[in-house]
Amino acid sequence: MSEITEISSNKIFGGWQKIYTHNSSELKCKMNFGVFLPPQTEEGSVPVIYWLSGLTCTEANFIQKSGAQKYAAEQGVIIVVPDTSPRGLNIPGQEDSWDFGTGAGFYVDATMDPWKNNYRMYSYVTKELPALINEKFPTIPERQSIMGHSMGGHGALIAALKSPGQYRTVSAFAPISNPSKCPWGQKAFSGYLGGTHGDIAWKEYDAVELTKKYNGPPLEILIDQGTEDIFLKQSQLLPENLLAAAKETELRLILRLQEGYDHSYFFIATFIEDHIKHHVKHLKS
Amino acid sequence: MSEITEISSNKIFGGWQKIYTHNSSELKCKMNFGVFLPPQTEEGSVPVIYWLSGLTCTEANFIQKSGAQKYAAEQGVIIVVPDTSPRGLNIPGQEDSWDFGTGAGFYVDATMDPWKNNYRMYSYVTKELPALINEKFPTIPERQSIMGHSMGGHGALIAALKSPGQYRTVSAFAPISNPSKCPWGQKAFSGYLGGTHGDIAWKEYDAVELTKKYNGPPLEILIDQGTEDIFLKQSQLLPENLLAAAKETELRLILRLQEGYDHSYFFIATFIEDHIKHHVKHLKS
Repeated sequence: MSEITEISSNKIFGGWQKIYTHNSSELKCKMNFGVFLPPQTEEGSVPVIYWLSGLTCTEANFIQKSGAQKYAAEQGVIIVVPDTSPRGLNIPGQEDSWDFGTGAGFYVDATMDPWKNNYRMYSYVTKELPALINEKFPTIPERQSIMGHSMGGHGALIAALKSPGQYRTVSAFAPISNPSKCPWGQKAFSGYLGGTHGDIAWKEYDAVELTKKYNGPPLEILIDQGTEDIFLKQSQLLPENLLAAAKETELRLILRLQEGYDHSYFFIATFIEDHIKHHVKHLKS
Repeated sequence: MSEITEISSNKIFGGWQKIYTHNSSELKCKMNFGVFLPPQTEEGSVPVIYWLSGLTCTEANFIQKSGAQKYAAEQGVIIVVPDTSPRGLNIPGQEDSWDFGTGAGFYVDATMDPWKNNYRMYSYVTKELPALINEKFPTIPERQSIMGHSMGGHGALIAALKSPGQYRTVSAFAPISNPSKCPWGQKAFSGYLGGTHGDIAWKEYDAVELTKKYNGPPLEILIDQGTEDIFLKQSQLLPENLLAAAKETELRLILRLQEGYDHSYFFIATFIEDHIKHHVKHLKS
């Protein structure tokens, strides 16, 4: 069905960090994604963790800065890293903001013009890309999980909450936890989905709202949040709202406040080992 | 004496990755450098390792991509990362090549016009910067060592070999081991130093030549070299010449050929833990 083309391959920690490009049918454009193949894939199939990146990122940031390959090699898991929006289109306004359009797909399926034909990142990361990965790489399809940072933390949370059973677990670094109630999320949702806070379309992509109505299998969510994160202070992240919502449910949310850490990849690098171990605990159980 | 200005500070692995800027008297321009302060510096002074980067790099590459902070935090060592050339000057020709001029200082003190007033990277990294670091940060000045990558591997080797006793040990990733005999080194040396191969000025900055006449205290040199490094295949690195020279001396050279690895930071990230442990063995003995 689908062609993928390798554009780079580097040995790291005994495995291979690769970047591919392909034509996405959901997004109707060429998309890059990263795949880390641990040495265990030479022997057979392994679980897979998806990483969703934050605003302005491409697949490169996590690959170059997180240090995740060491732990993925130790634990024997594939890590897949998609880009954060469609690329190379000519949609008016796509380059006007750093927090909307290119680099800022927000992991929703847009319903508004001029975005709705291409900005289908939710379907891309939860359906098209996993199908492609399972076809092309030695994964165990029923053992997958998802994690992310900031906008990508939002993406990981909604993916796990909207598709009960598809992901064994979920974790996030400084996620946008309640997008309907923060400036970044309100800008993205009104642009991609139209309407306003309280609309059903918004609730369908808001982790706090999805938590309230979650009725799938048990899910243990790990969130790390730096206390010196400027976007926490600006009320863009609102993890307290997610914690409050989870307390009313069967979901187990472990929210760790990390003293002195900020919103950067230095914070992610420090705690990515814990996240990968959290995922592996659920992926191999 | 000298002012330094902090331009960024990020918590990572319990320590602090900082970047500073200062006015260099050797280079007569503003220079950035990175300092990782491990958590142990809250209690007292610790040893310091200098990292010298390769062609086209700034201080940022190692800081963002190596993952070294984890091991420096575990072992309790400061890591200092200078830039690779003077910056912000208006020297004719400085931007013409990626392997000469800006980003390519080659860690020599130039003697040729128009470079000789500013391109004094050898004195900068071995004298001015260490004096500044020892003045401003909690180092143990007699416990320092040096490492680097590619052009910076050359820089680390010559620094250790030219100043016996100043550095407790030295290590390198894919160093330019015999610059007088490779295209990169010949271009740099003829531009910065004038003359040609065989001239005394070239021998004074060539690790193979310096190894032959080394008569300082014992020095254990660790070098990692990827077998799939394209620059190895292009005879830019020539580690075999350094190995041959070291065999005639009291120097102990451990040259590890790493199967399948290339010249990238993915290679460095994989083995930086070994290098930091090698340094700490000598720094704390």
